[in-house]
Amino acid sequence: MKKIFTLTDTDAFTSARTGILSLPHGDVITPSFMPVGTNGTVKGMYHKSVSDIGYRLILANTYHLYLRPGTQVLKAFDGLHRFSNWDYNILTDSGGFQVFSLSQLRKIKEEGVIFQSHIDGSRHQLTPEKVVDIQNIIGSDIMMCLDVCTAPDIPYKEAKKAWETTRNWARRSYDHWVEHGERGNLFGIVQGNFYKDLRKESALALSEIDFPGLAIGGLSVGETSEQFAEYLAYTTQFLPVQRPRYVMGIGTPDYILEAVGNGIDLFDCVLATRSGRNGSVFTDDGMIQLKKAAHEFDDSPIVEGCTCTACRGYSRGYLRHVFKAKEMIAGMLATEHNLTYLYNFMERIRESIREDRFAQFKKSYLERYYG
Amino acid sequence: MKKIFTLTDTDAFTSARTGILSLPHGDVITPSFMPVGTNGTVKGMYHKSVSDIGYRLILANTYHLYLRPGTQVLKAFDGLHRFSNWDYNILTDSGGFQVFSLSQLRKIKEEGVIFQSHIDGSRHQLTPEKVVDIQNIIGSDIMMCLDVCTAPDIPYKEAKKAWETTRNWARRSYDHWVEHGERGNLFGIVQGNFYKDLRKESALALSEIDFPGLAIGGLSVGETSEQFAEYLAYTTQFLPVQRPRYVMGIGTPDYILEAVGNGIDLFDCVLATRSGRNGSVFTDDGMIQLKKAAHEFDDSPIVEGCTCTACRGYSRGYLRHVFKAKEMIAGMLATEHNLTYLYNFMERIRESIREDRFAQFKKSYLERYYG
Repeated sequence: MKKIFTLTDTDAFTSARTGILSLPHGDVITPSFMPVGTNGTVKGMYHKSVSDIGYRLILANTYHLYLRPGTQVLKAFDGLHRFSNWDYNILTDSGGFQVFSLSQLRKIKEEGVIFQSHIDGSRHQLTPEKVVDIQNIIGSDIMMCLDVCTAPDIPYKEAKKAWETTRNWARRSYDHWVEHGERGNLFGIVQGNFYKDLRKESALALSEIDFPGLAIGGLSVGETSEQFAEYLAYTTQFLPVQRPRYVMGIGTPDYILEAVGNGIDLFDCVLATRSGRNGSVFTDDGMIQLKKAAHEFDDSPIVEGCTCTACRGYSRGYLRHVFKAKEMIAGMLATEHNLTYLYNFMERIRESIREDRFAQFKKSYLERYYG
Repeated sequence: MKKIFTLTDTDAFTSARTGILSLPHGDVITPSFMPVGTNGTVKGMYHKSVSDIGYRLILANTYHLYLRPGTQVLKAFDGLHRFSNWDYNILTDSGGFQVFSLSQLRKIKEEGVIFQSHIDGSRHQLTPEKVVDIQNIIGSDIMMCLDVCTAPDIPYKEAKKAWETTRNWARRSYDHWVEHGERGNLFGIVQGNFYKDLRKESALALSEIDFPGLAIGGLSVGETSEQFAEYLAYTTQFLPVQRPRYVMGIGTPDYILEAVGNGIDLFDCVLATRSGRNGSVFTDDGMIQLKKAAHEFDDSPIVEGCTCTACRGYSRGYLRHVFKAKEMIAGMLATEHNLTYLYNFMERIRESIREDRFAQFKKSYLERYYG
């Protein structure tokens, strides 16, 4: 098995841990949040600004890149790193979630999934093997297996069938990846909906395959935060300690704290960037909405002491003005703030783990965040 | 009279000239193009990137800033420089053109102009005195007199009446500006539509007032390029050589060359930024549209050797991809390219003037540009 994860510290009172993920484009310290760059760009950010904050691993979407610009273009430009001028690591998802959430048609067969493009309605088939190939063309440092995503409220029988397909696809993905020289690092995705026996079976079965890392899918899909916490904790206990663990689609401080406390190392979410574009920005007192009239004459930065361009140079009053005027700089500045905030937040988390006070940090952070 | 312009070189064969404009926030070498930052931000650009290119004078719109965020906010933040974190010079127009082109109602009276906001339909009155006051609250380094803008095809009588109001307002603006301590530098605006006697009368009458600089308004409003050249040359001959001259609303290489050849020192236009956001970018071979399929596999930069972020880091193929995917970075990169291109273009013009070969530069540039 390719070993890419080195555990560096474990919190004395929780499952929280720090580590180093060694990837083709440099090391990543964990736990780590990954900004989302769907089309090969983190919306509203120069790639240089993303790496200047400190990020060494961002996410791109296989589904989107496969449809546009397409594999021919990506191949001609020697993959996404060179095409998008990003020198650090890229994780790509498998497209399984986008086929489920974005495309107009989804037909799951044992061979693969047939869907219609959300862009032009064209029909496509993705198979586990093809998805590995596409991610190799992209040049991903971490690649995900094609999986079957399901809605949170489906019957047991349906969830079981979906998981069994995911299992078969994971095995085929792995075999194909090995046959083609183990380029990049392939992660399996645990599914099983909100059924504990399926979750357990899924976690154990995927752990038996020598994936360099494992992901938990199918959470943060509309369930309550209590359900999220319950199923996250339940699932994670069956995942091997030695391998990196990734929970897909979470990115608010409260969910990140919940995940870290359960020993999760990686997360991604569009919220930091999307909500930034809408004027919602992170502070230690929770999110604030910059468009509000309360900020009209407010001469203070979003967060005192924050090192982002927005907080170093601009008042909440100016930010409110550019949001009201629908100026591009508004989304640019708020996005940079949110990504800077989350990066620093992860650093505070890592420090608290190294000093065995993660539980205390979590408690006091959330008191103020929800207060 | 406040003397703010120092002539440094005159082309031996045309009226083109170089100079230094000494303004409260630093010197500006002319001829100079001014990027437009309507709401206190150049769309898609960090202010730092604008000044990094070399720009020392940008434009903001009095009409927009008066309506939003409003003078109360601007006053509370000590003006636009501090509010928008821009350390160099700002020129503001008077709002006369926006009242003409944007607002839903325009009622010109001798006292001032009544109009309805294009944002919320609210009614406002602007007088020449009030417009000077607003620009002082903004903290403008160059301020413009309120003028009456007219469509290019109106009858003589109407054009004459509009010019006469503009003349009276210019005098009132000047008197008010002097009474209030000559803060910033007030420019008069020559009008007169497309009637030569009115243009001449207007240029001469405004030259008699001790404005630190003079502008030519009412050109580039839909007339042919021949008409533009004719009326520009005709008007400029009546403007004093010692004062800076500004032609409002032009910003393509061909129009800039025409203006410079007639001894114009300043221009502004939204085209560089607006067309950048739409995928049109400047090259020595004319504008190219990045969205075109021809660029899909194109590994070359927009302009070989250009120092902008787009040309240093990205291929036309990537730029096409992000434009097709409607990503913010597309407009950000193309805008930076266009502003960088125009800045370097002005530097090439200034060099050709210093070396008495402006006419030759203009000819060979346009041959390739139109070729």
